Amino acid sequence: MTTVPQDVRAPLTRLFDPRSIAVIGASTDPAKRGFQVINGLLRSHFTGRIVPVNPRGGTILGLPVLREIAELPFGLDAALLAIPAKAVPGVIRQLAGRGVAGAVVLANGFGETAAGAPLDADLKAAIAESGVRVVGPNTSGLLTVASGANLVGVADVPAGPVALVTQSGNMLLTFLADVRANRMPGLHSYIGLGNQADVGFADCVRELAARSDVGVIALHAEGFKEGRSLLIAAAQAARERPVVLLRGGRSTAGARTALSHTGSVAGPDGVARAVLTQAGIELVERSDELAIVAGVLATTAPIPDGLGIAVLSDGGGHASLTVDALADRDVPLANLAAATRDRLAELLGPAAAVANPIDVAGATDADPSPFVDVARLLMADPAVGLVLVVGMYGGYHLRFDPRLQVEEEATSRRLAELSRESGKPMIVQSLFARDMPASHDILRASGIPVLASIDHAVRVVSALRRRGHRLATATERSSLELHTPPESASGGTRVLAEPAAREFIESAGIDVGDWVFAATPAEARAAVARFGVPCAVKVVSSQVVHKSDVGGVRLDVTDGESAFRSIVDSVRAAVSGADVMGVVVTPMAGRGIELIVGATADPIFGPVVAFGSGGMLVEARGDVTFRAAPFTRLEAMEMIDETAASKVLDGYRGLPKVDRERLATLLVRVGDFAASTPRLRELDLNPVIANFDGVLPLDVRIVLAEESST
Amino acid sequence: MTTVPQDVRAPLTRLFDPRSIAVIGASTDPAKRGFQVINGLLRSHFTGRIVPVNPRGGTILGLPVLREIAELPFGLDAALLAIPAKAVPGVIRQLAGRGVAGAVVLANGFGETAAGAPLDADLKAAIAESGVRVVGPNTSGLLTVASGANLVGVADVPAGPVALVTQSGNMLLTFLADVRANRMPGLHSYIGLGNQADVGFADCVRELAARSDVGVIALHAEGFKEGRSLLIAAAQAARERPVVLLRGGRSTAGARTALSHTGSVAGPDGVARAVLTQAGIELVERSDELAIVAGVLATTAPIPDGLGIAVLSDGGGHASLTVDALADRDVPLANLAAATRDRLAELLGPAAAVANPIDVAGATDADPSPFVDVARLLMADPAVGLVLVVGMYGGYHLRFDPRLQVEEEATSRRLAELSRESGKPMIVQSLFARDMPASHDILRASGIPVLASIDHAVRVVSALRRRGHRLATATERSSLELHTPPESASGGTRVLAEPAAREFIESAGIDVGDWVFAATPAEARAAVARFGVPCAVKVVSSQVVHKSDVGGVRLDVTDGESAFRSIVDSVRAAVSGADVMGVVVTPMAGRGIELIVGATADPIFGPVVAFGSGGMLVEARGDVTFRAAPFTRLEAMEMIDETAASKVLDGYRGLPKVDRERLATLLVRVGDFAASTPRLRELDLNPVIANFDGVLPLDVRIVLAEESST
Repeated sequence: MTTVPQDVRAPLTRLFDPRSIAVIGASTDPAKRGFQVINGLLRSHFTGRIVPVNPRGGTILGLPVLREIAELPFGLDAALLAIPAKAVPGVIRQLAGRGVAGAVVLANGFGETAAGAPLDADLKAAIAESGVRVVGPNTSGLLTVASGANLVGVADVPAGPVALVTQSGNMLLTFLADVRANRMPGLHSYIGLGNQADVGFADCVRELAARSDVGVIALHAEGFKEGRSLLIAAAQAARERPVVLLRGGRSTAGARTALSHTGSVAGPDGVARAVLTQAGIELVERSDELAIVAGVLATTAPIPDGLGIAVLSDGGGHASLTVDALADRDVPLANLAAATRDRLAELLGPAAAVANPIDVAGATDADPSPFVDVARLLMADPAVGLVLVVGMYGGYHLRFDPRLQVEEEATSRRLAELSRESGKPMIVQSLFARDMPASHDILRASGIPVLASIDHAVRVVSALRRRGHRLATATERSSLELHTPPESASGGTRVLAEPAAREFIESAGIDVGDWVFAATPAEARAAVARFGVPCAVKVVSSQVVHKSDVGGVRLDVTDGESAFRSIVDSVRAAVSGADVMGVVVTPMAGRGIELIVGATADPIFGPVVAFGSGGMLVEARGDVTFRAAPFTRLEAMEMIDETAASKVLDGYRGLPKVDRERLATLLVRVGDFAASTPRLRELDLNPVIANFDGVLPLDVRIVLAEESST
Repeated sequence: MTTVPQDVRAPLTRLFDPRSIAVIGASTDPAKRGFQVINGLLRSHFTGRIVPVNPRGGTILGLPVLREIAELPFGLDAALLAIPAKAVPGVIRQLAGRGVAGAVVLANGFGETAAGAPLDADLKAAIAESGVRVVGPNTSGLLTVASGANLVGVADVPAGPVALVTQSGNMLLTFLADVRANRMPGLHSYIGLGNQADVGFADCVRELAARSDVGVIALHAEGFKEGRSLLIAAAQAARERPVVLLRGGRSTAGARTALSHTGSVAGPDGVARAVLTQAGIELVERSDELAIVAGVLATTAPIPDGLGIAVLSDGGGHASLTVDALADRDVPLANLAAATRDRLAELLGPAAAVANPIDVAGATDADPSPFVDVARLLMADPAVGLVLVVGMYGGYHLRFDPRLQVEEEATSRRLAELSRESGKPMIVQSLFARDMPASHDILRASGIPVLASIDHAVRVVSALRRRGHRLATATERSSLELHTPPESASGGTRVLAEPAAREFIESAGIDVGDWVFAATPAEARAAVARFGVPCAVKVVSSQVVHKSDVGGVRLDVTDGESAFRSIVDSVRAAVSGADVMGVVVTPMAGRGIELIVGATADPIFGPVVAFGSGGMLVEARGDVTFRAAPFTRLEAMEMIDETAASKVLDGYRGLPKVDRERLATLLVRVGDFAASTPRLRELDLNPVIANFDGVLPLDVRIVLAEESST
């Protein structure tokens, strides 16, 4: 029995980047994973130690085979389990005894089927008892390219800066196919999460973000078990390196969000999309763009915050398609300085377009070097954050004259130098990208991506712009950690009476304006008289949900007493046996814009705040956005900006101009309230009337979880 | 002097598919287009006659050169003009004398620059006088692949069914690069339109639609001179074959639409997008999808109208990404029959998912042939219109075992047979598509496209679905021809007084409800009394645009006389010297949904009708769609369906249920009115109140063009 040198790294670090690997269930049969994994490690030139285990002993591919786990040298980093599902929990427990940091479990037949539930429970118990970290079960394996720790059975993986984490082994193959087809950077590592019995996305993001050789973390996920922990991990990671996410199952996962009133506004995917973006994750909408977005974010500098794009083309057709695609993604063109335009005109002559986009209009057909002079002028313009070259660059020698190849390569070297010196990124789209000329590889080697598609080029521009903005504002963003830890609840809920709801949120510093609860007609009369203006009077009754529908609301009331009586009559007529506690009296709100502010306890992401256009048609309009609570003032302002409602807040067509700062304050306070009220299930302020006087919730509805009986 | 056999084809047919070509400005210098074109025709094995013309005579590449145009044999189909711009108009006139049907003009320096304007005018005069059809000037040329009539100087163009028309020569190169990279079908022909001094998009669509060997017409355009003629040509063409359009300059072209009130709701591109789609054109949003969408529409049968998609995958990851992408494009999954699901379960065993999407879950890894059995079951299900295979198909021999190659090829032949027999299309997405296995080429040869990207696969599915719907409903759609030809106007406009506007549209059968014009307080009193219900009273004054803003409106009026006086006082106080003609009195409308119906004279597309959510916030909400007038009831119903407003028309949250048929009638009548009123510049019915009682325009505003003084 031997030991390996003590590894001081954390268990997950050791599992993800193992220096020693036991193969449990090693086999001499080339058709079995227990053989293929050893073969794969050898073919990948794994730099560490491989320890096969099989009761039969002998050797496999020249390696001596141990007969028992008990014989393992103490303190191996990882074990690959190529054994039947039912043997897995026991082996995990045994591995703990040999100081193995982590295990990769290939077998299926656990939580993904009903029949596997008992085994799944046993596996989880084994994990909890042993402290062994587990990737899987039902995983395709994992891979660290630099060390050759290849447990996935895929050969010839191109090396690069991308750490890829997926739930589906096919996505690794797809990713690699896209890397090759688009000459994108390759992999730092791959983790196939499988069923996530232990290790999940948040663990991976935390662990990979700490690796200095990871340039980007690329995720493919079909749902999250612990959405909040992923948000927290991603928000932290995004300060160091980009996190990119392709989600599957968006269209079917969303039924859960329809449970609450606020949630039903989201559509199946609104909450997830908003809060993942809030956490700094770059969401990729198309599966064919994951490798491209991840690759460019890993290798190309972000666009300095606030700057625009200069488009440099050698033909009008590509220029206008590029400008359209940028506009579709709300990426602004740089407004070039007059001096820049003048010098461009000198350089390019009268046929060229020198307002952005710049079209060299054939000036480079016989000699691509003017691109360098133009790019230098553009890079030097203070409004330009990135130069996007579109058209035929790199293909002049193919299209016009083979002798231009030398010129193109020299031009590429000078463009790369320019980008480096200016600190501003450059991206090239070329219809000759698939011909893979050397001039393109020179650019790629310097962090200038070359793409065949205008749409892909613009997609990565938008990602680099968001990344630049994120980095510039990182300190102004929420860590997304909750003020108060979540609390278990019994599952039941109760609706607070409106006076209680108002008092509850007032105690959190949320202004709901003047109001009085009146339990009798006389109190209602006194309340209206005290306000001295026409009032709104609304029934308070635990049997009434939609107050207007049962005659429970009177507006412009000057006679509180008769309003009270009339409401009681209407409500009792509509809802037999209704128990009317009284009425809430408020001064009538001024004319204003109807907004909605809400909060919900999302089952995946925890407390989430909603904001958007309010009123009765809120669901039909669907103009609502979301943030995980708590969030900052900056995030509240961004939240406001991304709704259609924001278009009418600045004095639109005679409507009152709304103080966005006050609105942001309301949102931040609602977020703090949601983040520090573990029992909150739902908060609806709808409508909130926004006008000259401020922002005033007219109606307050709160649903709390019943306290747990445990 | 000789003649060629008389060609009875129309001039444009002869120009696009020439059997004889004169090269004016032929050259012996290989750097000149006058040489390159002849060389290109010879290298493309042009099957017709080439007649070079140059004053120096001699021979070029073995062909005798004529010294003068006058020496041309009579009745050549086409002339390529490789001569300086200033010589072009004269040569066009000379060509007419020799019976040449059409000319391709390469030179630039015409309408695209200010300096070229006089020459451009002379060219247009020459075209008008001579009757010679002209492609260009400033064009990259044209090409018919089958005959080798290659006037564009691009070699090795793959042959196929796509007729491509662009405004930019680079787009031909881009298209061909995308065809090669994606193994898409090649070109039937190419036309580079350049400045469109004569031949435009509508001419091309009409001409190419008449060619039985054209499978699809693919357009790249940066704006249209005659938008309406394109709509008419496309609507006609779409009955025979698909028309696909990629537009450049969308984001910058739209400023014009902001001129009118209705137009300003459209955003820069709303009108164009809506009316081009109405004409049956498949709009392609991404430049990297033009070759793919066009190629598939040319070779693959459309999806039978009303049927859904069956997704067949060999892995869960691809299946869920596919389902998401289909949902994003509103393409429905087929609801499989219980019998189909039962037989799938028998076939695939318990590990497989047999509700749509169907995941064979590894059952095909060792033998792809079960795909055939599954596909047969799916094709036989009456709810399935297309089977979309996603994952690794065709790559099993690369991933698992080289011996599977034979099986895969056999499977492809059987799948192709199945699709043919069932008459239902099939599309395959495979992460091995770029490896180009033979099994994929077998599918492609049978009209089953194989694509590397899930997003591309879903994009073409949505196009095939729209195509199927179009063909099924072709007879229920408008030809888009106008009832009354457009009339020239002096450019000035005038706003009709509301009573005149109401009478004008009433005469077109558009119901605006009960109303009375009252010129005096007494008439107002009588009107209110006659209606016997509370009324709305609105000022009529040519100085007042926004009536509410100047106190020109009274609601719930029971005393017409005092309302009249009070309105006059308010308006005169607000607008000094306002000339009040009287008031319009209408019964108060019931509660309902606020809609907008409008019409505008679009400078490109002619009369266009708008419909959407109405009221004061109409621009902010931006929920408006458009149709070129006149249009049919089916088109009106589709128009309603595509707005967010349609979501609240069926009795949403206690709102009245609206009769969509009556709404469609209103829209059709407004369309007929717009299409038969050449002087109409703007019609705004905002709001139109829709409720149980019907659909009632509350406000009618009409702007007419002044009659022309010429």
